Amino acid sequence: MSDAETLAERVRAGDLRLHELGEYADHETAAAARRHLLEVETDAELDAVSDFTFDAERASDAHIENMIGGAQIPMGVAGPVQVTGGAADGEYYLPLATTEGALVASVNRGLSVIATANGADARVTKSGMTRAPVFSVSGIAEAEEVVSWVEENTDQLREAAESTTSHGELLAVDPYVVGDSVFLRFVYDTKDAMGMNMATIATREAAEVVEAQTPASLVAVSGNLCSDKKPAAINVVEGRGRSVTADVKIPRETVEERLHTTPEAIEEANTRKNLVGSAKAGSLGFNAHAANVVAAAFLATGQDAAQVVEGSNAITTIEAREDHLYASVSLASLEVGTVGGGTKLATQSEALDVLGLRGGGDPAGTNAEALAEVIAVGALAGELSLLAALASRHLSSAHEDLGR
Amino acid sequence: MSDAETLAERVRAGDLRLHELGEYADHETAAAARRHLLEVETDAELDAVSDFTFDAERASDAHIENMIGGAQIPMGVAGPVQVTGGAADGEYYLPLATTEGALVASVNRGLSVIATANGADARVTKSGMTRAPVFSVSGIAEAEEVVSWVEENTDQLREAAESTTSHGELLAVDPYVVGDSVFLRFVYDTKDAMGMNMATIATREAAEVVEAQTPASLVAVSGNLCSDKKPAAINVVEGRGRSVTADVKIPRETVEERLHTTPEAIEEANTRKNLVGSAKAGSLGFNAHAANVVAAAFLATGQDAAQVVEGSNAITTIEAREDHLYASVSLASLEVGTVGGGTKLATQSEALDVLGLRGGGDPAGTNAEALAEVIAVGALAGELSLLAALASRHLSSAHEDLGR
Amino acid sequence: MSDAETLAERVRAGDLRLHELGEYADHETAAAARRHLLEVETDAELDAVSDFTFDAERASDAHIENMIGGAQIPMGVAGPVQVTGGAADGEYYLPLATTEGALVASVNRGLSVIATANGADARVTKSGMTRAPVFSVSGIAEAEEVVSWVEENTDQLREAAESTTSHGELLAVDPYVVGDSVFLRFVYDTKDAMGMNMATIATREAAEVVEAQTPASLVAVSGNLCSDKKPAAINVVEGRGRSVTADVKIPRETVEERLHTTPEAIEEANTRKNLVGSAKAGSLGFNAHAANVVAAAFLATGQDAAQVVEGSNAITTIEAREDHLYASVSLASLEVGTVGGGTKLATQSEALDVLGLRGGGDPAGTNAEALAEVIAVGALAGELSLLAALASRHLSSAHEDLGR
Amino acid sequence: MSDAETLAERVRAGDLRLHELGEYADHETAAAARRHLLEVETDAELDAVSDFTFDAERASDAHIENMIGGAQIPMGVAGPVQVTGGAADGEYYLPLATTEGALVASVNRGLSVIATANGADARVTKSGMTRAPVFSVSGIAEAEEVVSWVEENTDQLREAAESTTSHGELLAVDPYVVGDSVFLRFVYDTKDAMGMNMATIATREAAEVVEAQTPASLVAVSGNLCSDKKPAAINVVEGRGRSVTADVKIPRETVEERLHTTPEAIEEANTRKNLVGSAKAGSLGFNAHAANVVAAAFLATGQDAAQVVEGSNAITTIEAREDHLYASVSLASLEVGTVGGGTKLATQSEALDVLGLRGGGDPAGTNAEALAEVIAVGALAGELSLLAALASRHLSSAHEDLGR
Repeated sequence: MSDAETLAERVRAGDLRLHELGEYADHETAAAARRHLLEVETDAELDAVSDFTFDAERASDAHIENMIGGAQIPMGVAGPVQVTGGAADGEYYLPLATTEGALVASVNRGLSVIATANGADARVTKSGMTRAPVFSVSGIAEAEEVVSWVEENTDQLREAAESTTSHGELLAVDPYVVGDSVFLRFVYDTKDAMGMNMATIATREAAEVVEAQTPASLVAVSGNLCSDKKPAAINVVEGRGRSVTADVKIPRETVEERLHTTPEAIEEANTRKNLVGSAKAGSLGFNAHAANVVAAAFLATGQDAAQVVEGSNAITTIEAREDHLYASVSLASLEVGTVGGGTKLATQSEALDVLGLRGGGDPAGTNAEALAEVIAVGALAGELSLLAALASRHLSSAHEDLGR
Repeated sequence: MSDAETLAERVRAGDLRLHELGEYADHETAAAARRHLLEVETDAELDAVSDFTFDAERASDAHIENMIGGAQIPMGVAGPVQVTGGAADGEYYLPLATTEGALVASVNRGLSVIATANGADARVTKSGMTRAPVFSVSGIAEAEEVVSWVEENTDQLREAAESTTSHGELLAVDPYVVGDSVFLRFVYDTKDAMGMNMATIATREAAEVVEAQTPASLVAVSGNLCSDKKPAAINVVEGRGRSVTADVKIPRETVEERLHTTPEAIEEANTRKNLVGSAKAGSLGFNAHAANVVAAAFLATGQDAAQVVEGSNAITTIEAREDHLYASVSLASLEVGTVGGGTKLATQSEALDVLGLRGGGDPAGTNAEALAEVIAVGALAGELSLLAALASRHLSSAHEDLGR
Repeated sequence: MSDAETLAERVRAGDLRLHELGEYADHETAAAARRHLLEVETDAELDAVSDFTFDAERASDAHIENMIGGAQIPMGVAGPVQVTGGAADGEYYLPLATTEGALVASVNRGLSVIATANGADARVTKSGMTRAPVFSVSGIAEAEEVVSWVEENTDQLREAAESTTSHGELLAVDPYVVGDSVFLRFVYDTKDAMGMNMATIATREAAEVVEAQTPASLVAVSGNLCSDKKPAAINVVEGRGRSVTADVKIPRETVEERLHTTPEAIEEANTRKNLVGSAKAGSLGFNAHAANVVAAAFLATGQDAAQVVEGSNAITTIEAREDHLYASVSLASLEVGTVGGGTKLATQSEALDVLGLRGGGDPAGTNAEALAEVIAVGALAGELSLLAALASRHLSSAHEDLGR
Repeated sequence: MSDAETLAERVRAGDLRLHELGEYADHETAAAARRHLLEVETDAELDAVSDFTFDAERASDAHIENMIGGAQIPMGVAGPVQVTGGAADGEYYLPLATTEGALVASVNRGLSVIATANGADARVTKSGMTRAPVFSVSGIAEAEEVVSWVEENTDQLREAAESTTSHGELLAVDPYVVGDSVFLRFVYDTKDAMGMNMATIATREAAEVVEAQTPASLVAVSGNLCSDKKPAAINVVEGRGRSVTADVKIPRETVEERLHTTPEAIEEANTRKNLVGSAKAGSLGFNAHAANVVAAAFLATGQDAAQVVEGSNAITTIEAREDHLYASVSLASLEVGTVGGGTKLATQSEALDVLGLRGGGDPAGTNAEALAEVIAVGALAGELSLLAALASRHLSSAHEDLGR
């Protein structure tokens, strides 16, 4: 009986618990033990799950508990495309991991058309990772006092917050009051990190100052005005992570020859579907499928998959003009990093290398900014391609060919 | 020079394009050629990406174009927990793939507390995959005629739609009118499939009938009232995929001993953060981090990662009662399947085996229904655990320990 | 000392309370007594307030408590305009009561342009007044039972609901579940009445049946899924009161000569402001100022001023075409009546006479339907006029001239 | 034949148009002519409409075009109640104009309970009237330049904006970018004026500077990020006009004796209806009927009835505590003034006198601030009373007694 089997038997016997296995063996063996247990307890065979290439110790330290192995998602690549951004500058290949047939082809087609039009522009128009703790006070009179104190003592809060981080900078503290709840939305420049943990830790420290100096009492370090992983208008309006726009002008003849439709037909599809349809749906997303590209790029490059939620806060605009089609995608809250989190994993860091954006940028923050810009261009490509396909009535048949 | 290298050189020479490689070699070789090209063109080394276990041919047929390999995400497991559902019934282990440290531990802690309370109840309260094409008409007078025709001829649309599928059933066609745009929201029972492609293909067929029999002209097979991968209120209100709720009653002493806080403190955190905070944020998500659990379960089991967007449409309720804590999570639009899509991939199908829910259920639809119920219980566990941690002010320190 | 003064002194002495005055004198005298009290207690003189024309007894019975008199709002008229609707058919003058200078002129200008284009089409595409009580249950398992019972016993609920009304008909009962809360959205045809009270009373009766036959316990006869007087997406999506659209095609030369701009400029203003701007604002209203027209028409015709909230759920679409401008306004939830409520007041019933829509229609419901259609055309006129003014950059100067 | 009749005949003959009558006679006569015309063209008799007390000339100059007379709404009064605010301080009677039976009684009951609890606290936590023009640019690269210019030249914009007003102050210019549209949200302190016209005129002037100094071209002086008279999340999050909260602590025995229910029952009604129900409805309003009180106070005091839309952006919180009930209402965007607009009309200025808040405050802005605070307390009273009635199941019967 292998070590893993022995350990699995001890769990089955109630002698150990799944999450304690890491204390009795290296993480590789602990994972094997868990797989063994699952194979005995269920009818599963976990061969593929066991076959992973990332480092078990580091993954267990940083990313996963009760590890049993890895999930594998097919990865493809789209591009190359010229991106002229605030940070991005040059030709980029965009790695995409997805299980949705036709997606990479769709983005690739869009990027190819954009490439023909000499590439896309992109800009990060706003940047800042947020954390918004909620405090309780005795009532509105006290709430006003707390808000006044915060407004007059932002320096003190900055000092506390920044004491916890070597890179992060506190940009603002925005107060919101509802009855006897005070929300303080802390906004940070987290450079090349997506920055959630950095923001949480820094805010926790600042919140202690608020508690020490005012009558406010911390209820939760996140009070949902951050807003993380929820579809919230505050992110649409004020942004979170990077607010980034990509746009392109595509000559009319290119639209006709390459996309087999007209600027007018694409504009109509966009207006009726992405603008009017989304309006009627009570939507915060006015786009065709930006989330598809965001999700696939996030999985490939080690971003947080749950933040696809706010990554979908995108508005697509299309205008048919005399000699060209103007197309843009504006993502209000794209939360990306090139350091920390899942970016260090084996396959993900290789994908960042394909982009030339692994690790910290020079100056700091420019790699994450460039990543946001390239993903925005990818989303733009996806919008163009799908809208053109809709306009040409090819969606279903494309899925029939590729998606089965 | 290997075949792959030769092919890569031909691409570099402009002789071939990336997406044409599959026509000149098997998909394994084509992927190698693309990796080689990327390694030459960028500074990337793609060793880890090349080390995948799924079948290259099938992946290229169904999931990915321009394949270069696979992304690997660490997978852990939480549970077991007793779920008493409409379809789920028994003890379940929940596989979760994520890069966010502390998440699996958090869900596991929550499930452990739920297990102590004899497990959770769960129910799918509504079910239906939707596709909502948008048609143009000449004006509101014609719109009314089209809507009338549709209401009187639903049988004809059903016949057309169902002619394209052996499993799917058309449940309803709901019309919405905005000016000279008519949206028809088709709702399908897609059994154990998530059902987007099935719904798209069936709707395309029905839309042709509408075009043939009325003056309406199809603009886009999706008019964004579906609403797929956008944060839209229509999904919050009317549901999409499965609307599923999980709830549990946890004895007061269990809360105190295991979660180190009180029912009252958890209720206060939920009210101020998840209800009042989300209200102030203009949010469609009234929960702490349901998207985290949804995303991790989706990645593990082969669901569509971009549908985490609407998977985050969840409301968490907490009520402190005399002798226990009542907790519930209601996910309005959880789109899951146990057949089709990414569920057939190697690691993902093994994860479904861990759940005992791979493939079609008996009767049809019950596996997907059970999967929705188990994920809802996982989300409930995540909410309980995080709310308790917030109440106990442990969030940051937990992240400091586990998240680095 | 007059009777009124004597009564006022008794209130000041603490012998009587303001709301008890109606028991000691006729309502006219009671109102005079209250004015006297206020004049003594504050520095107000209430001469204008005392000068009202409606019947004090009827107003006190039906509309107001602690009456002191009347507020007077200037009333103007716009039109006439040809409306070709489902119920409206002919030329209409639209009375509007407002304090916002330039509004009536703006609507009048728009109607004049529409008249030139042979009038507007209008249709009510959906109709139903709603009330959605919330019940508590023991948990999700019981919630499912209650929902099943409701679905199987809608006839019983209809019988109970309709027993309270001679006119109203129950159209549907739509269930929504969140944790241990069950919401039942009752939808009624309330004919020519706006119908809130009718719906409330009928639903109260039906709710008693639910309570008697199921374990559900009524928490509130309105659970906010109605949704009354709140800006809620459920009304945008599903409608409340009348969902009504008006549209018009205006010849290009008319746009140029009468509105001093082009179809293209109006379309651009609409797209950037009403569609893209509203999208970025996280709005449920995609229009320029539909609420202005709705509010003014509501005040003139005795509708509920607080329901302007959902009356503003409107989408304006503009499309520049080769030879004309297509313009539409779709109001999702316009709650109007021509019987009951404020429609019986003196000035308001006269305003309804101007429209030819006072009292019950023949067949029942057609007067309220026609009123909805005419208001929609008024809103369309306001949109056209303001968008044209914006396009021509005249907004501020128009306000400078007229609004001071 | 009177002058009015003669003029009416000239309109009928096509010799004059309705809106030209003011050029041929004084406004009183012109109104009589219009009434005569309407009486001839329709079956209406406009006796009550003709009987108004406000000044016809001033009304025609400032408030109404095509005047025919006045609409009269019954006015009642609630209170008195002690308000301890940032500006309000003392006992206030609240005049309310409405046609909804039971509303004044409901507010009065609530205020009476609040009075018993020594009155309510209230605070304006944020203040600023907004106007957000939308500019077109050539693309995202130019958008970034324009935003940079604006951020570096706010002083120049302030100078231009403030040159148009003797009172208003520019507080901020917040830029938002979507594709090739740039929105600049100008925020003003408009003192005691509601301030829309002031903000529009000032912004128009500043927009000309933007146009002169940058490549941006003004499309519309309002780009819907203001957001005026639309139900928009930007107002919920960032506020517009006054963001104001009122709260109160009511002893448990007062709740039981006066409201015939318990703090716990009121909290449960609030949670299930106003928080969870509104969440499920996709709502921006988390309250029971704040719009009712806002509308009635607006009509009585000469505010803009269409701004009830954003006045309904309110969150009600209730917490049952050991010895008392805590209740609050937070209105995010209450737009009120005590000078300008409808406040100068006869009945409306008398109503402001009842409040002691007519005209400019000392210091400037305090009257409007106090008005916001008193209305918030009125809304709080309405919430308490209705929630208590719901908790006691009296809503329908109250309506049956009072609403018919």
